Amino acid sequence: MVSKSQIKLITSLAQKKYRYKHGLFVAEGFKTINELINSKFSLNRLFTISADFGVDSSKVQKLDEKELKKISFLKTPQTALALFEIPEEEIVQEESLILALDGIRDPGNLGTIIRLCDWFGIKNLVCSNDSVDCFNPKVVQATMGSLARVNISYCELKMYLEKSDLPVYGAFMEGENIYKAEVFKNGILVMGNEANGISAEIEALINEKISIPRFGELNETESLNVATATAILLSEFKRKNFSNS
Amino acid sequence: MVSKSQIKLITSLAQKKYRYKHGLFVAEGFKTINELINSKFSLNRLFTISADFGVDSSKVQKLDEKELKKISFLKTPQTALALFEIPEEEIVQEESLILALDGIRDPGNLGTIIRLCDWFGIKNLVCSNDSVDCFNPKVVQATMGSLARVNISYCELKMYLEKSDLPVYGAFMEGENIYKAEVFKNGILVMGNEANGISAEIEALINEKISIPRFGELNETESLNVATATAILLSEFKRKNFSNS
Repeated sequence: MVSKSQIKLITSLAQKKYRYKHGLFVAEGFKTINELINSKFSLNRLFTISADFGVDSSKVQKLDEKELKKISFLKTPQTALALFEIPEEEIVQEESLILALDGIRDPGNLGTIIRLCDWFGIKNLVCSNDSVDCFNPKVVQATMGSLARVNISYCELKMYLEKSDLPVYGAFMEGENIYKAEVFKNGILVMGNEANGISAEIEALINEKISIPRFGELNETESLNVATATAILLSEFKRKNFSNS
Repeated sequence: MVSKSQIKLITSLAQKKYRYKHGLFVAEGFKTINELINSKFSLNRLFTISADFGVDSSKVQKLDEKELKKISFLKTPQTALALFEIPEEEIVQEESLILALDGIRDPGNLGTIIRLCDWFGIKNLVCSNDSVDCFNPKVVQATMGSLARVNISYCELKMYLEKSDLPVYGAFMEGENIYKAEVFKNGILVMGNEANGISAEIEALINEKISIPRFGELNETESLNVATATAILLSEFKRKNFSNS
């Protein structure tokens, strides 16, 4: 059973302001929920048709498919939906590469980038305040559980970069060829907005502009999607670091 | 104005069987349509609210937003929709890397992969017959016009690989570290299905298994999305080739 007030609460969590008002976000599907349960995140409530997650039964509510459909954000609901508490932001202090996002708007892109951080061992992801919220249900879905292993913080990116002593790299169409560029193991890599790239105020704080060489026919209108560009650049930073260690 | 029979024709093109029956596919939005017009593709008909594409006016029909909404496949229709003829398949014979897809099902992934081929100058993309159709409206949309610059063919992938003399590389979780692997400039790189990877019958034809090293915590359930993995592997093949030339 799901009560009317629970349905109202859960559907309200589609909106950022209600997520932060209630301090809760939604995760769906066995894999994602299971990974979040076994992480730093605190489970608030679990709604499930059948799956056994081995959690405190006082937090579990059984429901049927029809009820799940009412609270799910997915076109094809999976077997479970859970509410987790939004944690305090933390930045893990460690010597490594930090990824910074300047105004990423698409939830699918942010989700893919969080998965990439997980794969490449990037512990800290810093987002400008105008980036899409990482607890947006579409982002949570796209991370496939990687959300549990990456520290994500939102800040005034300009101030954050001004305060940092690390070298700041930025992805630009006209930057230095990443295959040839020397990059440090410790640094901040900035990726820009889907349509406009890195903003002018952030560009002023970049120490080195880098780019991915294009091999196809010259075509000025073309660019790589920000998530695939991030994949290639993180791989390059890690490869260079790998070869040197 | 759009006639009833045109509406019926266009909406039928959501389905593969009608695309091939009529030999037509749909493209939407100024950028995509414009790139396809200036390519090997033949324009069949253009429906537009306002945009001027500089084409033979006998092929152009003006319409209003309400009419465009009826024929568009997009939630938020753009200013134009065009029908293009599905071309004959061709494989350009040239010394270079060929990308082969074994059962890619997601239109967004195929679209992203076609954009990557365009970026990295991959002229030939070979898809197994059970891969998603490249003229699916969602694929066309995701390619952002790159469809115009990549030759895509569908075939019995097993037979295609058996006949080829080129070295065949395949992406596997347990393959050789791509940062260290020696790869030839000419070869076929096979990427597998989203859920199941490369099928057993294709695996038997792979000469060298390669993989992208994982740097994050060990976590057996995790993998990279096929489009981001393709991005990283194409970048690696081109980088090695670049350094050697």
